[in-house]
Amino acid sequence: MNAIITLTTDFGLADAYVAAMKAVILSINPEAKLIDITHHIKPQSIREAAFVLSTVYDLFPARTIHLVVVDPGVGTQRKAIILRTPSADFVAPDNGVLSYALQQISSRPVDVEHQQIELGAELEAVSITRSKYWRATVSSTFHGRDIFAPVAAHLSLGVPLKNFGERITSLTAFPLPRPRLAKNALIGEVLHIDNFGNLITSIRRDDLPSASKTITVKIGNKTISGLSRTYQDNEGLLALIGSSDYLEISLRNGSAGDFLKSKVGDEVRVELNE
Amino acid sequence: MNAIITLTTDFGLADAYVAAMKAVILSINPEAKLIDITHHIKPQSIREAAFVLSTVYDLFPARTIHLVVVDPGVGTQRKAIILRTPSADFVAPDNGVLSYALQQISSRPVDVEHQQIELGAELEAVSITRSKYWRATVSSTFHGRDIFAPVAAHLSLGVPLKNFGERITSLTAFPLPRPRLAKNALIGEVLHIDNFGNLITSIRRDDLPSASKTITVKIGNKTISGLSRTYQDNEGLLALIGSSDYLEISLRNGSAGDFLKSKVGDEVRVELNE
Amino acid sequence: MNAIITLTTDFGLADAYVAAMKAVILSINPEAKLIDITHHIKPQSIREAAFVLSTVYDLFPARTIHLVVVDPGVGTQRKAIILRTPSADFVAPDNGVLSYALQQISSRPVDVEHQQIELGAELEAVSITRSKYWRATVSSTFHGRDIFAPVAAHLSLGVPLKNFGERITSLTAFPLPRPRLAKNALIGEVLHIDNFGNLITSIRRDDLPSASKTITVKIGNKTISGLSRTYQDNEGLLALIGSSDYLEISLRNGSAGDFLKSKVGDEVRVELNE
Repeated sequence: MNAIITLTTDFGLADAYVAAMKAVILSINPEAKLIDITHHIKPQSIREAAFVLSTVYDLFPARTIHLVVVDPGVGTQRKAIILRTPSADFVAPDNGVLSYALQQISSRPVDVEHQQIELGAELEAVSITRSKYWRATVSSTFHGRDIFAPVAAHLSLGVPLKNFGERITSLTAFPLPRPRLAKNALIGEVLHIDNFGNLITSIRRDDLPSASKTITVKIGNKTISGLSRTYQDNEGLLALIGSSDYLEISLRNGSAGDFLKSKVGDEVRVELNE
Repeated sequence: MNAIITLTTDFGLADAYVAAMKAVILSINPEAKLIDITHHIKPQSIREAAFVLSTVYDLFPARTIHLVVVDPGVGTQRKAIILRTPSADFVAPDNGVLSYALQQISSRPVDVEHQQIELGAELEAVSITRSKYWRATVSSTFHGRDIFAPVAAHLSLGVPLKNFGERITSLTAFPLPRPRLAKNALIGEVLHIDNFGNLITSIRRDDLPSASKTITVKIGNKTISGLSRTYQDNEGLLALIGSSDYLEISLRNGSAGDFLKSKVGDEVRVELNE
Repeated sequence: MNAIITLTTDFGLADAYVAAMKAVILSINPEAKLIDITHHIKPQSIREAAFVLSTVYDLFPARTIHLVVVDPGVGTQRKAIILRTPSADFVAPDNGVLSYALQQISSRPVDVEHQQIELGAELEAVSITRSKYWRATVSSTFHGRDIFAPVAAHLSLGVPLKNFGERITSLTAFPLPRPRLAKNALIGEVLHIDNFGNLITSIRRDDLPSASKTITVKIGNKTISGLSRTYQDNEGLLALIGSSDYLEISLRNGSAGDFLKSKVGDEVRVELNE
């Protein structure tokens, strides 16, 4: 009854859209514990939502329900789905917003042509089709309030997955951005720029050689030698492995993003010395 | 005891003003469930607060307490009030911030000259005058913390309405913006611009003819033909009935507000073809 | 079990950093009541965090735990500490972020040379050194998630202070900004600019003569005569004693900060007539 339901949206906090979803949830399950992940996803940025969600969902207690409403296709033919993993449930549009979670939990590859991932035995999903658990009237522009929120609330009360709609065996997903290997170098990109202006890149700790002190990082016309351990280790620009195991470019006591005028997608090159 | 108290303010989230109100509430009723509606009302914009609140208050469970502190007249002679409706309580300054709620619940007209609405039998209100339920020291600039929050908290514990002050029979209200009828056209205005740049207008679903597919919407020097059902139905600008039943102008995959350089109050014209 | 834990950070709300801390807390104490103070502290501004926290911490119920993570030195040699006061616990880096709270609770002076304050008998503190209460893996860049959050959660479950590490007898602190006395004048500074553009200064109610109606406030090339009681008392610029007992400069129905182009640290002069 007192399940945790997290909310991730691109609604911002200036309108009452987030509160509308919470109101609907509490009307169905007054004991639900509501935790905001973020509502400041760039409008309609499925990729940003997928990334931000991936850095946090597995920190929550088992059986947390993650409600993710970044939904440019609201009201169109895109499916609404519930994904059940060994540790959590996700309620979301079937538009790729769970791409990281899916590929972190399962090792199956994405069928790039069809933008689909087959679900392995450890994952279960349904297409949300039974209106019994929706609000009585459904706006074609706000499924967050009228479908996703009430479904998450009923799920938190223990309604079985199958009651919400028919089982499906694949979900929409995009392949995770991975660095490519060039001659003695890894070429990745900026995935996300955080509130401090840290550039989080697509290069992960495991992509780097273990003697990673000897790498050189290049972005724009700047070069950073070696990895730091903390944001205070170096003057000026520095590179380190951030708290979600991605290579990160930072500026001591400043914003690397502002300093480098960086944007998501910018190339980051790691040269592997010897 | 575990009543829901919602908060709507123009305090923003960078100061500790919202937290101060929550601290006071929890000191009185530790079981209160606090839900933010928004704290990003434009400073002192009673009309924006009234509108945003109107889109969400009736989604909450029965007997929710809505605390609304957009209060440019704090410390002056304006009253502080509690309004009890059949489904909820509102705690707010008597400055018009409940105008939508009052006119949605009651069918009485606003006395425009005196900016007052008489309360019908279904509504009850008191003027908050008994300091017993306030903080011991009251700042003349922060009644949110020192009067409204503790009153809402005591209300959530079941203190009877009459204990807070004397009954009053009318409240301050402004008439809701309504479109005017011109020759074969409705002329309304932009009421609110949301986080996506959608323009929410004063023209409601019920104002339009049922065969509304044939309308033409004009804003600035742009013309939109017909109503869409979803944000993806059309290329470019589109018009649709939004999730709170207002006519809305949107831009597919973009911000209509930025594209049209719109602001609240801009004229929107609907031409009723045949 | 259902202790209140407040959160004050410079993380912003666009990333999942705040949610990560909440997830960790709820994994340890699912009954914890989480209240945001603010996450919009200017990145790495220890002084702003210290000030904002000081305006609100003592409004919370007794034994609230205040988690404060503004931590430019994360991963370096700076200590992580728990401070226990007669009414609350604070979990924070030992970097001065508790300076106001320490000097408001204790009357001891700050040793300016060493930036330390000795703790009196009413205060108790430990250095957080025992990893038993941390996450299993600790990132050198996110102690908020990996050390502070789990420590606060275990503290909320009643784990004794001494279990977290050894007792310490002094903490890092900066002296609070105080106005200096010139000939018939007090010279202070802008401490904080709030969401409304109000300038909160370092001059406190107690610094002013009791017949304070006769003061003149000067900022930039503007002069304000006398103190107002509310934000509506005067046309244009006005000065009043704000809700936390600081002298405040405001603009009726506008932003004094924008109007005066003020910034934190700007001089404010109060002339004491006769």
